[in-house]
Amino acid sequence: MLSHSPDFVVTSFPTLGILGGGQLGKMMAAEAVRLGMGVRLLAPKDAGPMQAYAHATTADWTDPDILRDFATGCTAVTVESEWAPADVLAPVCPEDTALWPSPQTLGWIRHKGVQNDRLAAHDLPLPSYRCCATPDEVRAAGEALGWPLMLKQYEGSYDGYGNRLVERPDEVDEAWNDLAADDGVLAEQCIDFVRELAVQIARRPNGTSVAYPVVHTEQRDHRCHAVVAPAPMADDLAEEAQAIARDAIDAVEGVGLLAVELFETRDGAILVNEIAPRPHNTGHYTIEGCVTSQFENHVRAVLDLPLGATDLVAPYAVMVNVLGQREGTPPRADGWKQALQVPGAHVHIYGKPDVRPHRKMGHVTALGDTATETRTRAEEAAEQIIL
Amino acid sequence: MLSHSPDFVVTSFPTLGILGGGQLGKMMAAEAVRLGMGVRLLAPKDAGPMQAYAHATTADWTDPDILRDFATGCTAVTVESEWAPADVLAPVCPEDTALWPSPQTLGWIRHKGVQNDRLAAHDLPLPSYRCCATPDEVRAAGEALGWPLMLKQYEGSYDGYGNRLVERPDEVDEAWNDLAADDGVLAEQCIDFVRELAVQIARRPNGTSVAYPVVHTEQRDHRCHAVVAPAPMADDLAEEAQAIARDAIDAVEGVGLLAVELFETRDGAILVNEIAPRPHNTGHYTIEGCVTSQFENHVRAVLDLPLGATDLVAPYAVMVNVLGQREGTPPRADGWKQALQVPGAHVHIYGKPDVRPHRKMGHVTALGDTATETRTRAEEAAEQIIL
Repeated sequence: MLSHSPDFVVTSFPTLGILGGGQLGKMMAAEAVRLGMGVRLLAPKDAGPMQAYAHATTADWTDPDILRDFATGCTAVTVESEWAPADVLAPVCPEDTALWPSPQTLGWIRHKGVQNDRLAAHDLPLPSYRCCATPDEVRAAGEALGWPLMLKQYEGSYDGYGNRLVERPDEVDEAWNDLAADDGVLAEQCIDFVRELAVQIARRPNGTSVAYPVVHTEQRDHRCHAVVAPAPMADDLAEEAQAIARDAIDAVEGVGLLAVELFETRDGAILVNEIAPRPHNTGHYTIEGCVTSQFENHVRAVLDLPLGATDLVAPYAVMVNVLGQREGTPPRADGWKQALQVPGAHVHIYGKPDVRPHRKMGHVTALGDTATETRTRAEEAAEQIIL
Repeated sequence: MLSHSPDFVVTSFPTLGILGGGQLGKMMAAEAVRLGMGVRLLAPKDAGPMQAYAHATTADWTDPDILRDFATGCTAVTVESEWAPADVLAPVCPEDTALWPSPQTLGWIRHKGVQNDRLAAHDLPLPSYRCCATPDEVRAAGEALGWPLMLKQYEGSYDGYGNRLVERPDEVDEAWNDLAADDGVLAEQCIDFVRELAVQIARRPNGTSVAYPVVHTEQRDHRCHAVVAPAPMADDLAEEAQAIARDAIDAVEGVGLLAVELFETRDGAILVNEIAPRPHNTGHYTIEGCVTSQFENHVRAVLDLPLGATDLVAPYAVMVNVLGQREGTPPRADGWKQALQVPGAHVHIYGKPDVRPHRKMGHVTALGDTATETRTRAEEAAEQIIL
């Protein structure tokens, strides 16, 4: 029998450190708390969502001392974003604290040129692309791959920002000026896709992994609007998509929950669009929709615990994002009560202190027996919430 | 457009105050946080489970000033236990803060004699009982109701503590000395039940309510060991049990999520055993097992928000408690990894800093297509966890 000593506060339950305090950190923390773990969060500025939790710290996370202090006592530290300073932490990380995904994995993913090269070297199917160091190389890529070209900023693009469709050679210079970094820009063949898909993969340090169902992600104005699980497609194509996603995460040696965005082309091919080294908006449906959520499997994977089942718990799960509609602070709860009236609407509000147009402020998930009926309820509830 | 002023931090999202910091408060907080609400917790001593959350305070909650400060700014304050000092808060509660369940409801429930009288006055079916002020009145009750008698402490009994089966008149004095308070003891007819059942009811201030499925609760050593949802019984009997539970909560004017424990007698009658004015161990299965968990509907009800659907999301949900097996601190995580290996086992560890034999330390829920197979997985996972 252990004696009760106030000095003896160590527990054998793990403590998880999360670099990031947005909605992804919040949703990771929720699962870790349920499992009885300790949780710490660190963000460089006051990130609203993390403020619900006790050990949430705002500090300069580019400072190695701060990062080392944060990591000391953590069983594992993970990131909610590819931009979290894992590479600053790595050299000062205590020996008994794991850091996943590795800075190596994040480095392979953060830069789209490096990411494509890595995936191509592992024979993953991708849109044809060129890493272009000059505008002339972009024009040459257009001649080789065909116009129009999709130009992509190497780092930092999201929700349609940082991507540009270039129709003709004489449009290249302007796009170059907008997008190119010192090392240039990525030029990709413009894919005639019928659908955008996504697959979540949870992968442990030993390389064992589980794949979630293939989902259909619908964009509006280049932003994820809705996710339908499972994507309506033939079983063999879905299995191919899952296998490609698994291979892509193997190729970048990902540990944790990583998402693979895919194109289904008009001629029935599956191509990798891009990878996110963390739980992803396209996997939020898993919280209620799957036996184990993407956040729980992320927590399990980075702590090297057994991974949970990824099966859907209903025939269909549909997630619809709630985006900001104005500039301001703090968010109003207009229509939120009405949303709760929609049968089976699972409402998530992230708790961001500021609203911006199109900012992801929350989401709604519904489960059901048919895609259409489930979709209708999720849309109906999400539409009510005006933030 | 609202300007961004650091002084303007009020949000129109509600803030929920929770009196209590144990596992019930923790699980209420989890739902409120997901819905974007502010959450505060107050407990009289360091309650481990609440420590995951930011605004968790340990203070003397018998002090009206502390309670008023706690409630100020809360949209509603609720309790995780019938012993929380709602009656101390009520006279000092700010006008714009709701307090649910009401001290009146808690008063009707806390004292088993008062509870039975209240339910009997509303024609709820109960075991025959007498409120006995002397040992002689207990013996007279035995003659009238038949031996053996179940003697129940009026206040504070739980998990078999405070209840005593008395076989004969000459055993009354000893039981009396153990159980009787100044106002005596409750003597109940000993019911020959085939099953113990429970029903969760969520009820809004306007009296509208929803009922959860009837569950079968299995005791071991007078403690809840497992809960099987739905209870294996005929539809009409289940409907009767739900109707009785609803009437019982109407009778005590309950607001929030309240649980009704029932007996199914050998001759097919449903009797009310007792009421708990809060989310209850027999409803933990609803977290994964129902469209809306008992904790979410508790939060909705006390904030007077629309109630969510109570349907099961799978044919069966089984919950098995994880009880402490030793005296000590802190809990070890022995076998916890093995529990995560059981397919579809949803593991909840409450985060209590001290273990005691039989103390509720966590639970496991599994969902499935048959009661037996689901039960096997829940038991298998729960057995692995040695705290």
